[in-house]
Amino acid sequence: MFEDPVYREAVVDLLGAIGYGEISAFERLCEDARLAPTLEDKVAIATMASAQLVKVEPIRVRMADLGADPFAVMESFREKFDEFHAHTAPADWFEGLVKAYVGDGLANDFYREIAAYLDVETRDLVLSTLEDSGHAAFAVDRVRAGIAADHRLGGRLALWGRRLMGEALTQAQRVVAERDALSALLAGGVDMPGLDLAAIGRMFTRLTERHAARMAELGLEH
Amino acid sequence: MFEDPVYREAVVDLLGAIGYGEISAFERLCEDARLAPTLEDKVAIATMASAQLVKVEPIRVRMADLGADPFAVMESFREKFDEFHAHTAPADWFEGLVKAYVGDGLANDFYREIAAYLDVETRDLVLSTLEDSGHAAFAVDRVRAGIAADHRLGGRLALWGRRLMGEALTQAQRVVAERDALSALLAGGVDMPGLDLAAIGRMFTRLTERHAARMAELGLEH
Repeated sequence: MFEDPVYREAVVDLLGAIGYGEISAFERLCEDARLAPTLEDKVAIATMASAQLVKVEPIRVRMADLGADPFAVMESFREKFDEFHAHTAPADWFEGLVKAYVGDGLANDFYREIAAYLDVETRDLVLSTLEDSGHAAFAVDRVRAGIAADHRLGGRLALWGRRLMGEALTQAQRVVAERDALSALLAGGVDMPGLDLAAIGRMFTRLTERHAARMAELGLEH
Repeated sequence: MFEDPVYREAVVDLLGAIGYGEISAFERLCEDARLAPTLEDKVAIATMASAQLVKVEPIRVRMADLGADPFAVMESFREKFDEFHAHTAPADWFEGLVKAYVGDGLANDFYREIAAYLDVETRDLVLSTLEDSGHAAFAVDRVRAGIAADHRLGGRLALWGRRLMGEALTQAQRVVAERDALSALLAGGVDMPGLDLAAIGRMFTRLTERHAARMAELGLEH
């Protein structure tokens, strides 16, 4: 499939988006760590940050193998990701936790959907970056405890979760629309399966359902 | 040696200082990463941050084994470390690099000196946290390149290095003075070797010499 320059470009773009996304997640989690109410919480969030960062290296190596300039490609996604983060800056520790859990989950779901359209090697690489680092339970535990202690918190965080979902979909749509190769990958080609409008609708439904499940896991109404 | 409650307390204090130091180093490196001029530099610094953080867990486990409340002990060192960092906030990317390299080196030298007075198991644990994560070369490379491009930078960073050394010694001295168990560890006891004034003088000379060697490595006059 890599003889097809459009496919190769789509893969490089996808890896660039995932790579910059991991770097960006590291940075945001570092900021969340500063808001941690206890040193133990701080270390837990810092460990989540590190878990994101270690995923960058295999992505970088693969991009270089494909003949791309990894950091230049990752850099090209900076604006869109930074825009998402600027629009969803957590006001406090709990908003940061919800964003880490819900945002990470959404991104993982989205990449998992796309992985279905990739060659086996790239798919395995993408899926390996999506493994839950086992820290989701921490966010769930802390958010549930926070809501138990202050019921008004639940209402605020439920709204926050909806806003995160909206912003994420907006930016993801913009990224795909701007990248011809990614659009082509999703649309499919002569010898590649792709997504028609109905399939995109079903994907959207799956993403929304999984988001709702995560909100419920946090004890929040969707 | 652990039947001696003063020795046990000294070890717990030492591990607490190292542990909080690692957490604190993680946080400062996260801030430095924000100042990185390129995405590649950002990832390099972020990787150094993560390398500090992973050292916290074995320290925490050992403290718990010794019957201490790890996070409470680490927390008790927060004020002194934060004071050091408040007094040595880097003004730019290069000051951050010098601080990471010189500060980390100094802390490691100091802990290595103290390790000589510890039981074998604690010593091995302490020494294992001091292994160079291999990122020192990055700081040296970037600082040297920066000075080559702008010679005035060398003079400023040389002053900065002296200030770091002065602040580090001031805070380290305060920490030891406030902790009776640590003072007792360094002073020795009936069946323990310790440091007399002459030995403290020699230790100070060794720390200063190694600091000077690091400054030279960065291409800076001491």
